Amino acid sequence: MFVVGIDPGLSRCGYGGVRQEGGASPVAVAAGVLTTSPSSALPERLASLLGQLRRLLSQWRPDVVVVERVLFQVNARTAMSVGQASGLALAAAAEVGVPVVQYSPNEVKQAVTGWGGAGKPQVQRMVQALLHLPERPSPADQADALALALCHLANAPLLAAAAAAARAEVAR
Amino acid sequence: MFVVGIDPGLSRCGYGGVRQEGGASPVAVAAGVLTTSPSSALPERLASLLGQLRRLLSQWRPDVVVVERVLFQVNARTAMSVGQASGLALAAAAEVGVPVVQYSPNEVKQAVTGWGGAGKPQVQRMVQALLHLPERPSPADQADALALALCHLANAPLLAAAAAAARAEVAR
Repeated sequence: MFVVGIDPGLSRCGYGGVRQEGGASPVAVAAGVLTTSPSSALPERLASLLGQLRRLLSQWRPDVVVVERVLFQVNARTAMSVGQASGLALAAAAEVGVPVVQYSPNEVKQAVTGWGGAGKPQVQRMVQALLHLPERPSPADQADALALALCHLANAPLLAAAAAAARAEVAR
Repeated sequence: MFVVGIDPGLSRCGYGGVRQEGGASPVAVAAGVLTTSPSSALPERLASLLGQLRRLLSQWRPDVVVVERVLFQVNARTAMSVGQASGLALAAAAEVGVPVVQYSPNEVKQAVTGWGGAGKPQVQRMVQALLHLPERPSPADQADALALALCHLANAPLLAAAAAAARAEVAR
């Protein structure tokens, strides 16, 4: 299964692709950060981000896209642009025809570090360890995107088992 | 000048086109509501709304699109989907190549009713009067979209004069 995580943001939008086959260890395929210029107008920045997300997803064609669920934060100004960026990521995935799942930041930290209140350095260290990376993934947006993909790979067997149980229940 | 107002929303996104030539009265060209089904998944709804907005703007090709500036409200769940819808409207306008301006709800109410704290029925009545409509525009999303267009038509001469003054200052 090939999973792409997206950590939405307008100035910096992290992405990370992770592949895992059968019971083998997950492997990082690529990760990076999509950017838009703070000196451009908001509509142009959003259209640029939408185009970049669409190109990334249509080139990579992952089995699943994992987008961080945006929660309301202290900084209302940032939360709005993060919310707008997350909407573009969800729309781009649907346009390209890739299934989307969302996890909250706490669910991701819980899955990757075992603790929902973990800090960014801890997430970066665990992502490095789980993916056997030579260096700590940086910036944090990129580490968070890889963590989103890892979170879904950890949850996918459980989700598949639950779906199969529901189907069996219906068929009975 | 042909102006299209957009009142962003995921379930109901109001739109209204208003034309005003020279000193003549503004005339409503068309208004309506774009909808997405609450029974569909969020990514599909956002992609559907994006497609509808893109088609509307590329068919109408207005001189300006006016999108309501989303502020944080009491209902955080609604604010997030309204924020996502506004991001799609801004991105669609930039993709189609139409200039975008934004006004806050209070600026729109102030321009249309003379009072920033006006209620929805008051906005609907004033939009009906200003555009000489046979009936009160309804639902409120549609009236709000027409009010956004009227707000910009009222502000456009002032904005143009300010831009001309700034150019003259630079040239001096």
